[in-house]
Amino acid sequence: MKHPAQFSEDDLIATFFAPLAGEAGLRLRDDAALMQPPPGRELVLTKDLLVAGVHFFSDDSPAAIARKALRVNLSDLAAKAAEPLGFLLGLALPADWTAEWLAAFAAGLGEDAANYRCPLLGGDTVRTPGPLTISVTAVGAVEAHKMVPRDGVKAGDRIYVTGTIGDAALGLKLRRGATADQDWIGALSDADAGFLRDRYLLPQPRLALRGALKGFAHAAMDVSDGLAGDLGKMLRLAGMTATIELGRIPLSGAARRALQMAPRLIEAICSGGDDYEIVCAAPPAKAASFEAAAAAARIAVSLLGAASPGEGALSFVDAGGEAIHLVRTSFQHF
Amino acid sequence: MKHPAQFSEDDLIATFFAPLAGEAGLRLRDDAALMQPPPGRELVLTKDLLVAGVHFFSDDSPAAIARKALRVNLSDLAAKAAEPLGFLLGLALPADWTAEWLAAFAAGLGEDAANYRCPLLGGDTVRTPGPLTISVTAVGAVEAHKMVPRDGVKAGDRIYVTGTIGDAALGLKLRRGATADQDWIGALSDADAGFLRDRYLLPQPRLALRGALKGFAHAAMDVSDGLAGDLGKMLRLAGMTATIELGRIPLSGAARRALQMAPRLIEAICSGGDDYEIVCAAPPAKAASFEAAAAAARIAVSLLGAASPGEGALSFVDAGGEAIHLVRTSFQHF
Repeated sequence: MKHPAQFSEDDLIATFFAPLAGEAGLRLRDDAALMQPPPGRELVLTKDLLVAGVHFFSDDSPAAIARKALRVNLSDLAAKAAEPLGFLLGLALPADWTAEWLAAFAAGLGEDAANYRCPLLGGDTVRTPGPLTISVTAVGAVEAHKMVPRDGVKAGDRIYVTGTIGDAALGLKLRRGATADQDWIGALSDADAGFLRDRYLLPQPRLALRGALKGFAHAAMDVSDGLAGDLGKMLRLAGMTATIELGRIPLSGAARRALQMAPRLIEAICSGGDDYEIVCAAPPAKAASFEAAAAAARIAVSLLGAASPGEGALSFVDAGGEAIHLVRTSFQHF
Repeated sequence: MKHPAQFSEDDLIATFFAPLAGEAGLRLRDDAALMQPPPGRELVLTKDLLVAGVHFFSDDSPAAIARKALRVNLSDLAAKAAEPLGFLLGLALPADWTAEWLAAFAAGLGEDAANYRCPLLGGDTVRTPGPLTISVTAVGAVEAHKMVPRDGVKAGDRIYVTGTIGDAALGLKLRRGATADQDWIGALSDADAGFLRDRYLLPQPRLALRGALKGFAHAAMDVSDGLAGDLGKMLRLAGMTATIELGRIPLSGAARRALQMAPRLIEAICSGGDDYEIVCAAPPAKAASFEAAAAAARIAVSLLGAASPGEGALSFVDAGGEAIHLVRTSFQHF
C-alpha cells in the first residue's frame, strides 16, 4: 500500500471511508451529511470519545478498536430504545499511522456498520501529535415519546440488568497483567481468559432489548462506568435507592471462577466499567411482560432488586444481609 | 475554584456544560440527546475535530478555542444553507486543565451557542495524555431538497466568494512570527496585525447567506483549506474548471497592505486555509438575484469568474493574463 505521506485527506477518505458511507453520507464528498428523519420519529444523538491508552490499548487490533468505538455509542442508543440510523466519525491519527492499519480499522468499522445497519454519514480526519483519538457521534430514531429516560425510576420498580457484569473489568486486568493479579490470572483456563479479554475488547450493544424497554421500562441506562456507580446514578436522579444482594449480580462462568480464586475481585466486578450492559427499571405489574419480551429477543436479563424512595447510597449486601463496602463505585474519568 | 482532582465527570458536566444545554440536551443527565426534527425539514450533520498545536494554539484564549470549534462547524452548515439546531461536544482534556480554563471555555462556547441559537445537546468529556482535542458535531436543518450540494456546478455558472480571503493565513503567520516573515510583520500597523490575528482566531460563519444560497446557488462549500484547493475541488467534482484573475480575489485592507510589502504572500492568501468563507456557483440568469439577496443579508460577495467544462486544474492569472503558479494549493492535513 501507499505510504501515509502519499495520501491527501481526500485520498484517505475516498480509499478507506467512502465505501462505508450510507446514502445520507453523500459519498463523503460534501461538507455535511443529509438525512431525511423517519416520519413520526424522534432523534436520539450520542457521542463518545475514545483515546488510545485510556479507553483502549494502542496495540489492540485496529478492527477491534474501530468496532469498540462504534459499539459504545450503539450501546447508548440501545439503552434509550433507539434504532441506529448512522454515525459520524472523527479520527485524529498520530504520525505513525500506516495504510495497512487504517485499512484494517475501516474493515472492522464497515463490518459493524453493516451488521448494525448503521452506515457512516460523515466525519473528519486530522493528524495529532498525541495518541490516536476517535470520536463517534451516533444518530438513532425512536417513536415519539418512547425514548426511555435515565431519570424515570419509580418506587417499587424492579431493577434488571442484561447479560453478565464484570467480565470486561476482569478482561482489562488480564490485559494489564499486574503482578498483584498473577494469583488468579495464572490459574485461569485459556478459554476463560480469552472470553474475558474479548468482553473487554468487544462490547455487545443490547439493541435487541429495544422492544422490551419501549414497552415496559420506566428508566434505563447503559452500564459503562461500573454497575455500582451507574445504577446508583440512575436511582439518585429519581430520589431512589436500593439494596442489591451480591448473589443476584449475573456473572459469567469465567468471572465466577476468577472470583472464587480471588474474592477481592468483587470490587472490580461491581465497579470496574466497560460492561456495556443495560440496567433498567420496570414497574412490578409489567415485570413479567418485560421478562417475556427480553426472552423473546434472546437477551438474558437478571432481576437485581427493587427501587425504594431514599437519598441514601445504593448498597450491596451478601447472602446473610451483611453490607459490602466498595472502595470506589465507578470508573473515574478524572 | 475547585482543583481538577475534585471534579468527577458528572460534576464537571453539571458545573460547566449543563447551563449551555438546550431542551433536547435533557440537562445533560441522560445517555443521549432527544430531538424532534422540525417537520418537513431534512437534517444536515457535520463534524470537525480540532487538536491543540494543529488547529489552534494551546495558549489561545479558552473562549476563542471554544468558539472556533463551534464556528468551523457552523460554517459547514452555512455552506449547505442549513439552519443550526444544536451541537454535541467531545472534549479530551490533558492532565493540566484547570477549572478556570474550563469555565472560560464554557463561557465562550455558551456565548456563541446563544448568539447562533445552537444549543449544546450532549457529548463526552475524557482525559487524554495528549494535547487538548475538541470534537464538535453540529446538527442543522434545511427545507426538503434545498441543501446546496458541493458537486452541483454547471457550465457557465458564476463563481462567488464571501468576505475576504487570506486574512486567516496571514494571521497565522503573524501568530507564528517566523524569521522569514519579519519583513512584512515588522512593517504592519498594530491595527492591521490585530485584524488579521482575529480573523485566524475567530471564523465568521456566513449563516446569513442561507437564503441567497437556497434561492439561487447550484453548489457551495466553505473555504477551510484554502481558496485554490477548495474551489478546485468543488469544480472538479462537476467536471468543471475555471480561470481566476488574481485581482478578483477579495482582500481586506490589511491583507492588501501586507501583500504590497511581500508579494510572495499571494501564495498563502490563495491556499493558506482557515478562511471559513463560502465559495459558491450560481447560474448567470440568477446572478443578479443572488447578489441582491446577499446584499440584503449584508454579506459581501465577490465574483471570481465562471465555470467551464474541463478536466484541467483551476488556474490563476494576473491582470495581463499570465498564469500564476502556486506551489501548493491547499492546507494539507497529512
